[in-house]
Amino acid sequence: MAEQPLYLQLRDQLMQRITSGNLPVGSRLPAERVLAESFNTTRITLRQALAQLESEGAIYRSNRRGWFVSSPRLTYEPVNDVSFTHYVAEQGRIPRTEVLGIEKMLASISVATALALHPGDDVYCLRRRRFVDERLVFVETIWLNPCYLPGIEQQQFESLWKLLADKYAIRLTRKQITITPTALTGSVAAALGVNSGCPGLYITRIGKTDEGACIEFDEEFWLNDVLTISVNTQGNQ
Amino acid sequence: MAEQPLYLQLRDQLMQRITSGNLPVGSRLPAERVLAESFNTTRITLRQALAQLESEGAIYRSNRRGWFVSSPRLTYEPVNDVSFTHYVAEQGRIPRTEVLGIEKMLASISVATALALHPGDDVYCLRRRRFVDERLVFVETIWLNPCYLPGIEQQQFESLWKLLADKYAIRLTRKQITITPTALTGSVAAALGVNSGCPGLYITRIGKTDEGACIEFDEEFWLNDVLTISVNTQGNQ
Repeated sequence: MAEQPLYLQLRDQLMQRITSGNLPVGSRLPAERVLAESFNTTRITLRQALAQLESEGAIYRSNRRGWFVSSPRLTYEPVNDVSFTHYVAEQGRIPRTEVLGIEKMLASISVATALALHPGDDVYCLRRRRFVDERLVFVETIWLNPCYLPGIEQQQFESLWKLLADKYAIRLTRKQITITPTALTGSVAAALGVNSGCPGLYITRIGKTDEGACIEFDEEFWLNDVLTISVNTQGNQ
Repeated sequence: MAEQPLYLQLRDQLMQRITSGNLPVGSRLPAERVLAESFNTTRITLRQALAQLESEGAIYRSNRRGWFVSSPRLTYEPVNDVSFTHYVAEQGRIPRTEVLGIEKMLASISVATALALHPGDDVYCLRRRRFVDERLVFVETIWLNPCYLPGIEQQQFESLWKLLADKYAIRLTRKQITITPTALTGSVAAALGVNSGCPGLYITRIGKTDEGACIEFDEEFWLNDVLTISVNTQGNQ
């Protein structure tokens, strides 16, 4: 009977040391020689297992200092699309939001389409940066429909959904979310501090009211190693 | 009032020519000089717009032959997790499945955990490749729980869910799906014909019956430019 390749078995064993807390987040892995001996394996197999864990984002290499255990990915459940602040805190991590500014702009074709406006119509453009444990993990541009939000430019935007509910009695009960693997380029890559062309996730969210009024169109660009998306269904085949 | 940067406006206009059918899938874009003139813009702005569309996967460059319009991404809705064959065909594309083989193996830690087995227990390992319009788009390993599937190794596997329903009266009504951006490495990269380290999507699916019996654990490795994941919610904030 066949077994999995040795390096994948070793990957599982290493992963177990990590998830068991034996190798906590941020800790340095033992030297490769020591690890190979403790698992009774070769350096070649060990390095394949480490490369596999690196590609999964579970460990990272720090120049000349060895291998370290990454923070676990955040679980994002689009089906119950709670606020970033909420689900990050719920997973024992520290969320932070930085508002970069809001300005009135002319709607481009894509923004107008998302918000059921005409190209060239007025639209508010809110820019924010989001952190987890003080690491910048995504940048976002939120396009707001001014028809429903008089005076919005004078507000505070750390918690937009709360603002919409409290000030405007608007609840975004219907959401269309898309998640697309992309390359981070140009000003987005610069804002995230990565090289242009680096892989990332592009997440969009159109938030509507029960009546179908399009209130916000959110465009988020995420680093590639932050999220796992999780969906549990009770659906049919 | 501010407008979006010129290259993003141009990106929208080019995208409109593509989605309108003016520039159909597979067609070559006009030469850069001609395009820049027709949009009354500079070559520099045009190239920024083209780079943006390339990073989104909407166009691709073919060596010395210019820019071409990519096939649109497939929309995958994990909430109604219908079969690959079904949703690909529904979007007017041609699905194909290639079965590479099935073998009995010893469950690794991660496979045992997913299927509620013990490490070292018997498990069936089914490998397949999936194509869209004859392009290989993902490879998958499906771990099958032998407790519920006597004689499965003698079956045909083009349509697994149909086989489970018809032969074993098993319907996978509960699914846990995860979607994680990853790097494609080692044998997976080789099987997909990309360089090791290339970005991709790792999608897992645990399929259970109504009673909670864990029947299958599917591990899929996708090329990065194939899918857009879509979720529509009626949830609360």
